[in-house]
Parts: sequence; structure tokens; C-alpha cells
Amino acid sequence: MKSAKIIEVNQPLQIEETKTPKPKGSQVLVKVRSSGVCHSDIHLWEGGYEGPQGQFLKTTDRGVKYPLTPGHEIAGVVDSLGEQTEGFAKNEKVLVYPWIGEGLCPACRTGEENLCDKPRSLGIYNDGGYAEYVLVPSYKYLIKLGDEIDTDTSAPLSCSALTAYGAVKNGNLTPNDNVVIVGTGGLGLMAIQLAKAITGSRIIALDRDDKKLKAAKENGADDIINSQKEDAVKAVMELTGKMGADAVIDFVNASSTVETDLNFLRRRAKLVLVGLFGGELKLNLIAMPTRSYKLIGSYTGSMNDLIELVSLAKRGIIKPIISNQFKLDEATKALKMLRDGKILGRGVINP
Amino acid sequence: MKSAKIIEVNQPLQIEETKTPKPKGSQVLVKVRSSGVCHSDIHLWEGGYEGPQGQFLKTTDRGVKYPLTPGHEIAGVVDSLGEQTEGFAKNEKVLVYPWIGEGLCPACRTGEENLCDKPRSLGIYNDGGYAEYVLVPSYKYLIKLGDEIDTDTSAPLSCSALTAYGAVKNGNLTPNDNVVIVGTGGLGLMAIQLAKAITGSRIIALDRDDKKLKAAKENGADDIINSQKEDAVKAVMELTGKMGADAVIDFVNASSTVETDLNFLRRRAKLVLVGLFGGELKLNLIAMPTRSYKLIGSYTGSMNDLIELVSLAKRGIIKPIISNQFKLDEATKALKMLRDGKILGRGVINP
Amino acid sequence: MKSAKIIEVNQPLQIEETKTPKPKGSQVLVKVRSSGVCHSDIHLWEGGYEGPQGQFLKTTDRGVKYPLTPGHEIAGVVDSLGEQTEGFAKNEKVLVYPWIGEGLCPACRTGEENLCDKPRSLGIYNDGGYAEYVLVPSYKYLIKLGDEIDTDTSAPLSCSALTAYGAVKNGNLTPNDNVVIVGTGGLGLMAIQLAKAITGSRIIALDRDDKKLKAAKENGADDIINSQKEDAVKAVMELTGKMGADAVIDFVNASSTVETDLNFLRRRAKLVLVGLFGGELKLNLIAMPTRSYKLIGSYTGSMNDLIELVSLAKRGIIKPIISNQFKLDEATKALKMLRDGKILGRGVINP
Amino acid sequence: MKSAKIIEVNQPLQIEETKTPKPKGSQVLVKVRSSGVCHSDIHLWEGGYEGPQGQFLKTTDRGVKYPLTPGHEIAGVVDSLGEQTEGFAKNEKVLVYPWIGEGLCPACRTGEENLCDKPRSLGIYNDGGYAEYVLVPSYKYLIKLGDEIDTDTSAPLSCSALTAYGAVKNGNLTPNDNVVIVGTGGLGLMAIQLAKAITGSRIIALDRDDKKLKAAKENGADDIINSQKEDAVKAVMELTGKMGADAVIDFVNASSTVETDLNFLRRRAKLVLVGLFGGELKLNLIAMPTRSYKLIGSYTGSMNDLIELVSLAKRGIIKPIISNQFKLDEATKALKMLRDGKILGRGVINP
Repeated sequence: MKSAKIIEVNQPLQIEETKTPKPKGSQVLVKVRSSGVCHSDIHLWEGGYEGPQGQFLKTTDRGVKYPLTPGHEIAGVVDSLGEQTEGFAKNEKVLVYPWIGEGLCPACRTGEENLCDKPRSLGIYNDGGYAEYVLVPSYKYLIKLGDEIDTDTSAPLSCSALTAYGAVKNGNLTPNDNVVIVGTGGLGLMAIQLAKAITGSRIIALDRDDKKLKAAKENGADDIINSQKEDAVKAVMELTGKMGADAVIDFVNASSTVETDLNFLRRRAKLVLVGLFGGELKLNLIAMPTRSYKLIGSYTGSMNDLIELVSLAKRGIIKPIISNQFKLDEATKALKMLRDGKILGRGVINP
Repeated sequence: MKSAKIIEVNQPLQIEETKTPKPKGSQVLVKVRSSGVCHSDIHLWEGGYEGPQGQFLKTTDRGVKYPLTPGHEIAGVVDSLGEQTEGFAKNEKVLVYPWIGEGLCPACRTGEENLCDKPRSLGIYNDGGYAEYVLVPSYKYLIKLGDEIDTDTSAPLSCSALTAYGAVKNGNLTPNDNVVIVGTGGLGLMAIQLAKAITGSRIIALDRDDKKLKAAKENGADDIINSQKEDAVKAVMELTGKMGADAVIDFVNASSTVETDLNFLRRRAKLVLVGLFGGELKLNLIAMPTRSYKLIGSYTGSMNDLIELVSLAKRGIIKPIISNQFKLDEATKALKMLRDGKILGRGVINP
Repeated sequence: MKSAKIIEVNQPLQIEETKTPKPKGSQVLVKVRSSGVCHSDIHLWEGGYEGPQGQFLKTTDRGVKYPLTPGHEIAGVVDSLGEQTEGFAKNEKVLVYPWIGEGLCPACRTGEENLCDKPRSLGIYNDGGYAEYVLVPSYKYLIKLGDEIDTDTSAPLSCSALTAYGAVKNGNLTPNDNVVIVGTGGLGLMAIQLAKAITGSRIIALDRDDKKLKAAKENGADDIINSQKEDAVKAVMELTGKMGADAVIDFVNASSTVETDLNFLRRRAKLVLVGLFGGELKLNLIAMPTRSYKLIGSYTGSMNDLIELVSLAKRGIIKPIISNQFKLDEATKALKMLRDGKILGRGVINP
Repeated sequence: MKSAKIIEVNQPLQIEETKTPKPKGSQVLVKVRSSGVCHSDIHLWEGGYEGPQGQFLKTTDRGVKYPLTPGHEIAGVVDSLGEQTEGFAKNEKVLVYPWIGEGLCPACRTGEENLCDKPRSLGIYNDGGYAEYVLVPSYKYLIKLGDEIDTDTSAPLSCSALTAYGAVKNGNLTPNDNVVIVGTGGLGLMAIQLAKAITGSRIIALDRDDKKLKAAKENGADDIINSQKEDAVKAVMELTGKMGADAVIDFVNASSTVETDLNFLRRRAKLVLVGLFGGELKLNLIAMPTRSYKLIGSYTGSMNDLIELVSLAKRGIIKPIISNQFKLDEATKALKMLRDGKILGRGVINP
């Protein structure tokens, strides 16, 4: 089988030919049809990212090992099945849940494998979907796609949409809540679609780009704020009758955005932090109890969340947008285009 | 009626004689038997407290007006009742819920008046319990005490114990959780009692004082750590099999304690911030999503929480400790003793 | 002021002229613009309804007293305000929350006044909205309507839509759930709209009338079943891949419908019982634990639920349907038409 | 290996010698040290039980196949491990979670395998613990016991105590709730211990046997009622200030007990049905919405619940009582003694 591997950080990915694995026990070998290209793949490729004090945080320090086949948004068809599998058949179209845990920690025990103490995510800690085949540790990580949805559209559900969904769930929104969505790129737009579909809350989109904000409006935002053109705090306060936002979901999560967020939070508000931009926040501790804020870190979602997302996507209630398709040997090109902001929806590799 | 009033900040409280109010509508006049002396009364007396950058945050800037009769932990007997009251009789022994809201905001609507957008708490925004009588805006803020519990023991339930209870509830603890209680003064000890009574979790108490830690053990802590004598992070990691704490409740909430807390949190952990010490925390934003932390500000508790606390106290499941009793004209002395660390349990004024 | 009163059961309502009350304390006098006509008003008019063994259950046995002015779906404008009110002004357009409790029981304490131990609902235990004015015990039971919505459309939110909303909330639905809505009259249609707006679940409507089922489809049902024409159990099993429904909301709640419901419940399913048809169910007790069913009685909703509903209605997310308007002296006619099935949406009285 | 098998219903169990299985993939072979003897084993032995209309409900009709080795409360030591296992070592002392699901249904996905659509429980649908060895499908169903607790005490945690725990959790009790525990045999006593340890609620025990009620008191009941000697409804109403119980957990679940339960439920009350006695209940449907009752079927508990129970038992917070020990060839004797009411605590087989 062919894989596009990161052999050395910052170097072009190499197409390697290795022996196709044979699934044993509960394992399943999936023939990859579509593998989404995600921003976090760039971190893997560059070998790390910048930390709060400008230091470089290396991926190898948190357990990543090279050479590595990236790709955690994987859809394809069942190729072969271990002898302890069941419920799936050869050639069945499936989506892979990549946020695999070790299975014994409290997170795994309650179905939150994405928050496992010792994660084994595909495409990060184990070889992923930039390849002709991926070995999935158990049939329990597969979701049937059926005829309603294709693999290209499905692949990004398992990270991009799942992260948006986890964040919206953590916001615990109800009708009559005012929620501010900070950052209206792919994740933000999906969060707007999801908040529209299942919360009944009023959605205020915040970004610095009119084009993105137009898309936000089209995807369901009730109000939009361009923080380049107007004072974001003032604008949110006006839209909320001077009370502030009941919840904020920040898909940037940089020092500057979170500092602003804290200035338009209503008492009791939830601030859901999702983005991986990072940086250092100077937090006024006394405001935490007196204003009763909740700062909630949100990281992808559970297997059950993904099943719900697939159900929503099959019925057309949410609509992931795929904009670019690449061949396996174009993996490096795909990563470069994404890094340079040239992919507007989501790119997928079709091995 | 006589009241001990703060006329001018930092000056001795004055005993003033004013006309005893007559309750109208749903109001009730309560004859005060016991009024707890709380640390936050010292802020009122000093006119403010130090902010995160060392600036002085004035109480008048958040709506406090002088002269003011402090005292928000109030127990007594019903003296007289407005014509729209019901369910209470003259001379009935009652505890007052002081965290009164304006009634129309989302917090009030869901029974969380303590988190009201425009609070009207007794003893803070309105005259409180350092007086012979207190005017309560509605009979709905009273809880019957019955014969099982006296007013001195009950008074601190409405702030000291309620704050501990709200924090324990925000921790959302289950058996098999390891929870660290930071700060084992009055609130910390009550939190230990409450966590013992209703969560089944394993309690680790953290403080810098062996005497207090001994009390923590006696009140139900499973393990204790003296952070003056040993490395707190190392100690917590060892006690938790190197996994870290599932939850931390910090009754100090200073830069130094919270920085330490963040170093022994397990992935997915909840960090409940309660104390009013304050200061600035440098928070590494990227850890929020990747580690999925929840930082939860906790401020007192709801009327319903207080009813539950009274029920627990009546049945002896929790035991508030009253250590000092003062007369009304000793209010200034009481505040000074508390400020100087000379009150070990809780002081109450008996007007 | 004029009121349409039930003086004697089953007799035409009498228009009586009484002294207009003057609000005191926290009371507000509301000038009624619209008062919805509800099926339960017929029970009040007939003095009771048939019980499970065919016996007649009298309204007076559960505390109703005649003469009574019915009408619990009340919208209008503020006429005058007691001296302890705030936040509302004369002539302000408001909706009244009618499910008023006595304020001290556990239900009231947690904001569920609709489930109060000793209810004082307007139009049932106290004079209601079939009148020029209604005296509301506190300004806290009013919701501002603003300009986005008129009183006719708003009035039924406080019972018809609120009952549907409470039921949908009790269903605790998530995307990927299959929910069956039994009975697609006014409440069922509103439940379909609400489930569509805030749950993401797949909605199966069940009724015996093709016209109603067509409306169900138009209001958002994904699938419909006419139980007169096909075997309801078989149909639900087929639509759910032979697994059964994850939840059922039964707006009829008769022996026959509930018996059928129990035959298409998936293990772990919730069966929400809402309708007031009644009757006796022979329940196989052992199936309760082994199948882990939850039978949940659902009765209207809380003040907070109503605030959320008003928010949804103002933004056009739900659309109550008003079909008939009556004058105050046509109250008897309105009740008769409703009893005879001649009102298809909702009738309102405009005093 | 030797097993005590039901070859034919109602006949003595046969000791059979079969080949000891070899674990593959994620499987683990556990050497059984202790296997609890449970009432439901009697149903398996007798081939069924009596249904609501007196008909005999056969176990084979719900998928049980004979010959069968019963025993679902299993503790022992790891004997050997499949090649895809991890985290456990040979000879490690473990408790087995027996409520194994097929893994793909919604119940399994959210960690409620005990409520799986197609259960594969050990000792019911697959061979269980009345044997020298048991083959466990995955290491994920094992819990480490450590040195704090022995296998005899641990074994009944996985059914007897787990059922009590699931029921207490379904009661969703808070301090100030009055909960009635109906039936104070082994499960009822454990429920009392658990409610005492983690809810803070007031516990009223109801039974017909003074000896059992004495035990209830010793295990933590606040009040006891002997329904043979006094009117249970009247007694509960008196103890609850005429309001009725906020929750009832019925470990009998027979027509007669549930009919009584319904007469002392407070409005909004939860009635948790656990026992397998069964029978038919005539339920007045209209009371469900108007009284807002919740009838909740409760069936054992989740893996996570069992982990919590083990944690509570290790710390001595709950104390399972083992009263009788049997050898493997005394299995029939154990079942007979249990059927005849001659085992007061819990019997275990030590193969």
C-alpha cells in the first residue's frame, strides 16, 4: 500500500510503499476514499507550534513519533475484517472515528475517548488516512454512511464538524440565550449551522473579514460584527440590551480574542475555548467567583457525538463544504495551500 | 431600633437609633437574633480591596452606598408581616436568604438569585443584620428553622456554608473522583464535610498549616498535604497514581494557589474558583482545549441550596462551628478580630 | 369591569359587571386583549371529566370554586401597578404566566411553579382572562412582548405551546433519536415545530386523520403514520430499523394510545404522557426494569420555558396558529365550538 | 475445567469437565475465585417466571440457551490474556463486569451496556461464573481489586450492589428529599447504605418484617415503617408533613407494592421500579400529567457505576454482606437455599 508520510519535519511528505496490514481480532482494514486535510496536520508537519511565551512546543514532546502518516478525517470502505469483528461487511462505506483512547481511563469509560489520558488518535499517534489503507483498532470506531452521503463530504465530520459540535454542546445553549461565535472560518460556520439546528439561541458572529461574515449570515447567524470596523464589546453590549453574551464560543482562542470576550460576558456566562492559536491570557481571578464565569476548554467530540453528526448530515440538516480535492502524491501541496490560506472550505485527499 | 452602621470607611461602626420599619406587601420584619461576621464585611468596612494589578477596587464603584448596616448571615424570629405574606407566623424562628435578586433576569428566573445581574443582597446593597431588626423584601426569602437548630449555628449557613456548598455542587463530584480542597479555613472545612456527606469522592486537603490540616482530617479529609513542607504538585500526583486531580476547589483563589492547581489537574478536570483573594493568573490558553479543563467561578448558592443545607444541618449531617459571640456594640471589635485572624470558627453578633 | 363567568356548570357563561380591582404590593392589573380558549376550559364549564373507571371526577373536588372567570392564556397591556412592582410601565404589552404557585414548595423553589403542591393558576383557581381585566399577583409573572408579536398570537403560548414545549423538553431528545408524536392537533403540531427547531431528532407523526397528518408534515414531521390505515406498531418498527422509538410524546394519553405506544418503544425509551384524555392502563410491571422504560408525566411548563417560547415566537422560529376570534359575550359559543371540534387552530376571546 | 451447568431446567446442575478456553484478541481468561448466587439465577434454573396474567414466561423466549453455566457476579484472578489486551497482568485480582453489550447500539455507545438492545451478559446469554474459569470478551470488562477488598466481598458488587446503585442514581436524590425504600432485603439494604453515602436525603424504609427493618435502621434508614402493622400510606404522609414522598425506590415491584407507592407520591415524584416480582398495575393515566409523576424502570448499572462502587467498597463506605459460601458442586444446594429464603445476606460459590 502507498502512504504519504512525514519522514522529517518541514520536508515534503514521501510516498512510501509498505506491506498492507492484515486486521486481527477486532481490527478492521479500511480502504481510504477520502482523508481531510486539517490545520493540525500542519503542526505535525512543522514538528510543533509556538507556545504562550513564544517558545516552540515540539510534537515529539507530547508523544508524536516520525515517520508518521497523517490524516485523521477518514472515510472509505471496509476492506477486510478481523475474526472478532461484527456488524460490518466488506465494501461497506464507513466513516472512521479517529479519537481513539486506551480504553481504561475515566474519559474512555464514559464514552469520551477524545479526552483520554493516553490518546492513540489515528493520524497523530498512529498512522492515519493519507494512505491507501488505514488499520482501525476496532469495528466499534466505524460508522455506516449508507447511500445518503459520500465519503468526501463525510470525512471532515470526524474533526472539523465534530470540534464545532463539541463546542456547541459545551455551550449548553437554550432559546433566549445570546451566543457569540468568534471566528467564522470552517469551524465557526459549522458551529453556526449546528447552533441554528439544535439550540434555538440567537447567534452573533464575530470576525474581521466581511466575506467570512457574509458566509456566517448565510449559514444562519442572526447578527454579525466586524471587529475591524467597529468596537466588538460595544457592539455585543448593544445587541444584548447592555447585558452581555450568555455564551461565547471562541474558535480562535488567542490572547487578543479571549481578552475581548471577557469584556462582553454576562454574569454566569460560559466561555468555550476551542481554537489552537493559543497565547497567554492575563486572567483577573476575582472576577471568576464574583461574575461566576465558566471557562470551558473544548476538544473535538465523542463517538456518540459523531454518530449524531452523521445523522444530521445524512438528513441535510448540516452541510459540510468540500472545496478542494487532492491526489495522494499532492499531500504536500495540500498542506502548503492550507497553510497559505488558499483552501476556503475543506480539502480532502483521495488516495 | 438600633443598628451598627458603617458611616465612613475604616472608621468604627456607629450604633444608630432609627425608626423600626413596618413591613408592607410581601415584606417581613425579622427580629435579629444572630448575625454572622464574614470576611467580605471587612471589604465593606475598608471600602474596597486590592485588585489584580495592586489597584484599589472601591466598593462604591460596584454600587455599595454608605451609611450601610452590614450583616448578610441573619437568623432570628418573625416580628411582623406585610398583608401579602403567608406561611409564616409571628415569633417563628427563621433563617434569611440574603442573596436577593431583582427578580426578572435569567439567573433569578431559574432560581439562581445569587447570580442576579443586578443584586440587592442584604447587608451589602441594602441594610443587613448588624441591627435589632432587618426588613426582608418577601416571605419567600425565609426558611423555617424549627426546634432542631439554634440561630447562632444557623446564621453562617447562609453565606459561609452556602458558598462551600455551591462550590462542592459546581465540582459535580462522583465516587472515584479525587478532589483537592485548597484552603482549609472555615469554608474549606465545611466543603470537606459536605463532600464527605454527599459525593463519595476521595478528599485531599491542601493547606500550609498543620493545625488546620489536622482539622481537615477530623472533618473528613482522606489525605492531607502541607504545601509548606512538601511539593504540592508532586504530592497530589503521587496520591492520584500520577493522573492528577479530577477536581480542585480553591478557597483561596490567589495567583500562587491557582498556578499550582493547574499543575496537578488531570485532563478533563474541573477547577472551581471560590476565594476572594484574587490576583492575576497567566493562563496558557492552548491548554484549555487540549487538556479540556473547566475553570468554574462559584459564588454562594441558591435559595434551594440553602434549604438543603438547613435540612442537612438539622439532621446533624453537617456541623457549623461557632466560636465567638459579640454584642451589637462590639461589631467593630468583631471585624478587627476577624481581620487579625483571631476568630477560628465563625463569629456571630447577637443584637 | 365585565367578565364572562361560569356561574353554574353546563349553563351559559354570564357577563357580570364587577368593580375593577386596584393592584397592591407586587400586583399588576392587566387589561386583557386576548384570552385563549383551551380544552381544559371545557372541563371547568362541565364541572369535571370522566375518570378511569367511568366515574365523574368533579373539578370542585380538586379545589375549583364557582362562580369562576376562566381563561389562562392571557395577553394584554399593563393597566396599573402596585407600589412594590418594577420593570414594567403602564400600557406595556405583556403575556401573563398563569401557572402560579404558592411559592414555598420545592417545585416553586426551583422555578417549576407549574408543578406546585398547592397551585393558584389564573383562570382555574383564581379569576382569569375571560374578562376586561385580570389581576396578576406579581409583576414577576409578566413577559414583555415588544413589537415583534401581537397579543392574539402570543396568548396561546402560555398553555398550548407551553405544554408542547414542556413535553419536548421532557423527551430530552438528541439528533439520531427517533421520536413519535402521538396526536397531531394543535399541541402535537406545535411539538413538531419545537422538536424540529431545537432537537435535531427525526420526527414521526402518528394520528388517525390524513388532514392532520398532512399538517404534521408541513410543520416538520419527517414521517407520518395513519393508524386507521396501517398497523402503527409495524409502521414504527419499520421506520426505525426494527429497533423501536427512542421516545414517544403522547398528546392523547388514552388507554388505547398508550397501550400501542408501549409496543413500539425501544429499550431505554422515554414515554412522555401529556394528554388529558385519560383512562386506565394495564402496565406489565416487570417490563419497566427489564426494558428500562421511563414513563414521564408532563404538565405545562415553567416561567423560564415560557420566556424561551416567547423568544422563539418573536424570531419566527415557531408559529402559533390562531383561527377564530370571539367577543367576550361569545365565550359560551367559543366553548361549544371547541367542544364540537369546530375550531381547527386556536380560538381567542378579545374582550 | 469444571463448570456447574444447567442442562435441563429444574434438574440439579451438572458438574461438567470441558476444555479450558484460550483467550484470543482482546479476550481474557479469568480464574474464578468467587461467583455470587443471585435470585435471577433461579429464573434461569426454573426456565422462566410467572408473567402479569399468570402465564409462564420462558427464558428461552428471550434468547437464553441451555446447557448454560450461570453466574454473573464474578471475581477472580487473571489466568491468561489475548494478544490484543493490555493493562492487566497474570494473577491480578479482578472483578468482572458481566452486563456486556454488542457494542454498536445507542446504549453501548454512551456507556450503558447494561441496557444494550442485544445483550450478551455473562451467566445469562453466555457461560458465567459457576465454573473454574470464565472467558471475558475484553480486558475492558475487568476492574482491578487491589489488596483492599477480597473476591467474596467484591463479587456481589457487580449485580446486587450495582442494581441498588443504578436505582439510587435514577432516583436523582438531593438533601431535603424524602425517599422511601420499599423492600429491605439485600438490595434494599445496599440502597440505604448508598443513599446515606452520597445523597444527603432522608431515608424511610418500608417492609413487612421487623427484623429486616431493624437491619434497615442499622444500615442508615432514618425512619422505618412496617406495612403489616400500620397503614403505609398514612405513615409516609405523616413522616413527610402530609406532602408525600419525593421519590420511591421499589425493590419488590409487585402490583400490591406499586399500587401503595402511588398513594404516597408527592407531585413531581419519581417512582423507581427495580424488583423483578412483576404483575400488572392498573395505572390511572390522567394522574401522570396532572401529578407529573415519573415512573422509571431501573436495570443494574453501567461499567462506570461499577468502578465507582468498587471505589466506595475499597474505602469501606459501603459494606456488602456475604453470609454463605459454597463449593462448585454445591451450586444446586445454593440455589435451593436461596429460593427457600435461607440465605440472609449473599451466597457465593468458590470454585
